Amino acid sequence: MQGQPAPQSKSETSGNPLERMSHLLHDDMKKVNDLILNRMESDVAMIPKLAGYLIASGGKRIRPLMTLAATRLYDGQTTRPFALAAAVEFIHTATLLHDDVVDESAERRGHPSANVVYGNQASVLVGDFLFSRAFQLMVEDGSLEVLRILSAASAVIAEGEVLQLSLANDISLTLPQYEKIIACKTAALFAAATEIGPIIAGQDPAISAMLREYGFNLGMAFQIADDVLDYTADQDKLGKTVGDDFREGKLTAPVIYALQVADEGEQAFWQRTMEDRIQREEDLPRALEILKKHKSFAKGMDLARSYARQAQDQLKNAPKGDLRDLLIELASFTVDRTY
Amino acid sequence: MQGQPAPQSKSETSGNPLERMSHLLHDDMKKVNDLILNRMESDVAMIPKLAGYLIASGGKRIRPLMTLAATRLYDGQTTRPFALAAAVEFIHTATLLHDDVVDESAERRGHPSANVVYGNQASVLVGDFLFSRAFQLMVEDGSLEVLRILSAASAVIAEGEVLQLSLANDISLTLPQYEKIIACKTAALFAAATEIGPIIAGQDPAISAMLREYGFNLGMAFQIADDVLDYTADQDKLGKTVGDDFREGKLTAPVIYALQVADEGEQAFWQRTMEDRIQREEDLPRALEILKKHKSFAKGMDLARSYARQAQDQLKNAPKGDLRDLLIELASFTVDRTY
Repeated sequence: MQGQPAPQSKSETSGNPLERMSHLLHDDMKKVNDLILNRMESDVAMIPKLAGYLIASGGKRIRPLMTLAATRLYDGQTTRPFALAAAVEFIHTATLLHDDVVDESAERRGHPSANVVYGNQASVLVGDFLFSRAFQLMVEDGSLEVLRILSAASAVIAEGEVLQLSLANDISLTLPQYEKIIACKTAALFAAATEIGPIIAGQDPAISAMLREYGFNLGMAFQIADDVLDYTADQDKLGKTVGDDFREGKLTAPVIYALQVADEGEQAFWQRTMEDRIQREEDLPRALEILKKHKSFAKGMDLARSYARQAQDQLKNAPKGDLRDLLIELASFTVDRTY
Repeated sequence: MQGQPAPQSKSETSGNPLERMSHLLHDDMKKVNDLILNRMESDVAMIPKLAGYLIASGGKRIRPLMTLAATRLYDGQTTRPFALAAAVEFIHTATLLHDDVVDESAERRGHPSANVVYGNQASVLVGDFLFSRAFQLMVEDGSLEVLRILSAASAVIAEGEVLQLSLANDISLTLPQYEKIIACKTAALFAAATEIGPIIAGQDPAISAMLREYGFNLGMAFQIADDVLDYTADQDKLGKTVGDDFREGKLTAPVIYALQVADEGEQAFWQRTMEDRIQREEDLPRALEILKKHKSFAKGMDLARSYARQAQDQLKNAPKGDLRDLLIELASFTVDRTY
């Protein structure tokens, strides 16, 4: 396999599966990171400044890592995944920039968000630039199939975001509607990121469909767990404020489960806090109490775990080895992490 | 030529060159419009609603018309330009949606702008959707060359917008900086729209380069004339408020020319109104007076006219016929129009 890690002091068996996969694919990821930095350049100084602010702020690069891993399962040599993994990260970064403008976010990954530092206007436009640059990288690669997959994913992400906006602060949101939203806004890009791996590696459609399903289910598990962690995580490790979704009145799995069994008083509580968005200081503790009482976090994690298992099932027939083992572990880790 | 207009009451020789070209390519444009309406559809109801609001609000569809015309100069039969012309219009519409958010515009084409009616959030996201959909249309067409040209144009548009934002309200803006901004944010898409025509028609690179130059210079002429008309147009015909650029402190050709010869009092006036953005009711009339005194509108129109002539020069070797004549006339009309 190309990108065999050079001998390093850190053992390959330490850390969580994401860290170990980053370690295993270290040389490949270095090339992706170099491309990311290189291709966000522009004569217009504000573009690399703003893009670099977000890109350097400690993202896990999980999506480009997925593209690399899905390629390296089948081809240890090809250099094609570097540019396409960078394109995937650019699409993700563009959506983060636009998301933070749409959500009026104040923080991202424990730092003031780009829209706060550079303004909404620059965030919208630099997002547009990164999105265009992603397509330029794909065009340079030259695969219409990859272009088809990632342009479709981009359209679906935007649809998911608009759907979320249309249904914001609506406590009648159903679990299937919630799952539709996260399937679009999160799982679609994970699915595309892994689907293109076997395509790059010249595998047939059944293989890329299998990796697509892996990525889709991993993305679902990842987002649902994230939405539970928004209430339950250790504040310092989360890199954002616990209870953000509650304060924004964003309905996610835990509250949807709690609403399914809410008595009249609780119904009125969710109505006031999430739909009418009238909140007092004591409301978040009360929300946490109600959510715990109804086992809403456990139910959310069960849902996440069922997606994680579906992700793992897809890899039964993938080539055996460290990479497959790590991808399987990663699905478990996604739901078992505490931050 | 495919798309020979059916007999209609309106004579082909009436109207301005844009109207006559729309008439000549009426059947083709109908197919483009159908595709535009069809492909902005989505399960997420807000998307066609918001996109349709802007798309139905009376845009001139000049960019898709350019793609059609540049194709039909060389090929009267191919159906390929329909989807690609729709893609060009989607890219343009996406940039308008994002522009209006960035500029906090209240009006567009004489109607309240989409961000006012549907909110900034939806405008950003529906712009993203249309942009993605544009790439999907291009991928369906399957030309990597067209994808290369339009993804590069999209990146350049975003760069131009960020550059404009970086230099906003800066009265030291030079004419070359202004020309760089409009080359990116306006002329780049005109250039791409016409360049892809001969490519669709299977012509060699010298021909597409020629049409690219036509489109680029037409776009420059169009934008400079637009920037003059922002001060001089008949309010009712303009479809937006006269003096918008002045009120926003947006430096364009007329003010840049006036600043080149400003005395100390005028310098202080532009400093206060455009850079410090402290404006009183009597400032717009005074600005108009200064601009007229220094022949800034005439200078702006001379600059626009020189670009229009460069556009026309490109068509010397284009196939003779009604379409070539109209494209030549269009360049003149772009600078001679009064609205």
